[in-house]
Amino acid sequence: MDNLFTSISPELPEEIIEVLLKTEHCRLERIVSGGQATAPGEWYDQDAHEWVVLLTGGAGLRFEDEPEPRLLRPGDYLLIPAHRRHRVEWTDPEAPTVWLALHYHG
Amino acid sequence: MDNLFTSISPELPEEIIEVLLKTEHCRLERIVSGGQATAPGEWYDQDAHEWVVLLTGGAGLRFEDEPEPRLLRPGDYLLIPAHRRHRVEWTDPEAPTVWLALHYHG
Repeated sequence: MDNLFTSISPELPEEIIEVLLKTEHCRLERIVSGGQATAPGEWYDQDAHEWVVLLTGGAGLRFEDEPEPRLLRPGDYLLIPAHRRHRVEWTDPEAPTVWLALHYHG
Repeated sequence: MDNLFTSISPELPEEIIEVLLKTEHCRLERIVSGGQATAPGEWYDQDAHEWVVLLTGGAGLRFEDEPEPRLLRPGDYLLIPAHRRHRVEWTDPEAPTVWLALHYHG
């Protein structure tokens, strides 16, 4: 049986994105971050909606239309509507941050 | 911010199913079980596919076409294709079992 929390390298020089499920209408990903952040000055501007939950670790998620990043701890989830610009300010440098992200249209 | 692991009653006389997201093509649910199981002799036979992950607690998931239940521990995930008959033999009676289930077509 596959597990979201195993097979994680202790060294994560790059963020790992694994597609768990893909249909015509949605894509489910496991993302593992090891201290990475969105490049300075860059923002995500996505065509699809994204429902995302942080399962381990921690992160700061900033929306362009909000003054401060939101602090995400295990279990925290939120919806990022298509084209709401956002960036990951930081992820936990000490332990892997595991996310599940569901991208969908409509 | 909403969290998958908070707002869980210490007493769970019934399983709680909360729809987190619903579109024309998929439905994402948080399910919290407190020792419940599928009624004796009953099987789920679903029209949609279901991707499911167990996040806390534990469960025994039995497919009708397999002799033994699969033991699910936190992080374990699997795909239940539409109409593959299955049942939950048990869930952890000591601690809440939190699942995320994505039901989808196509």
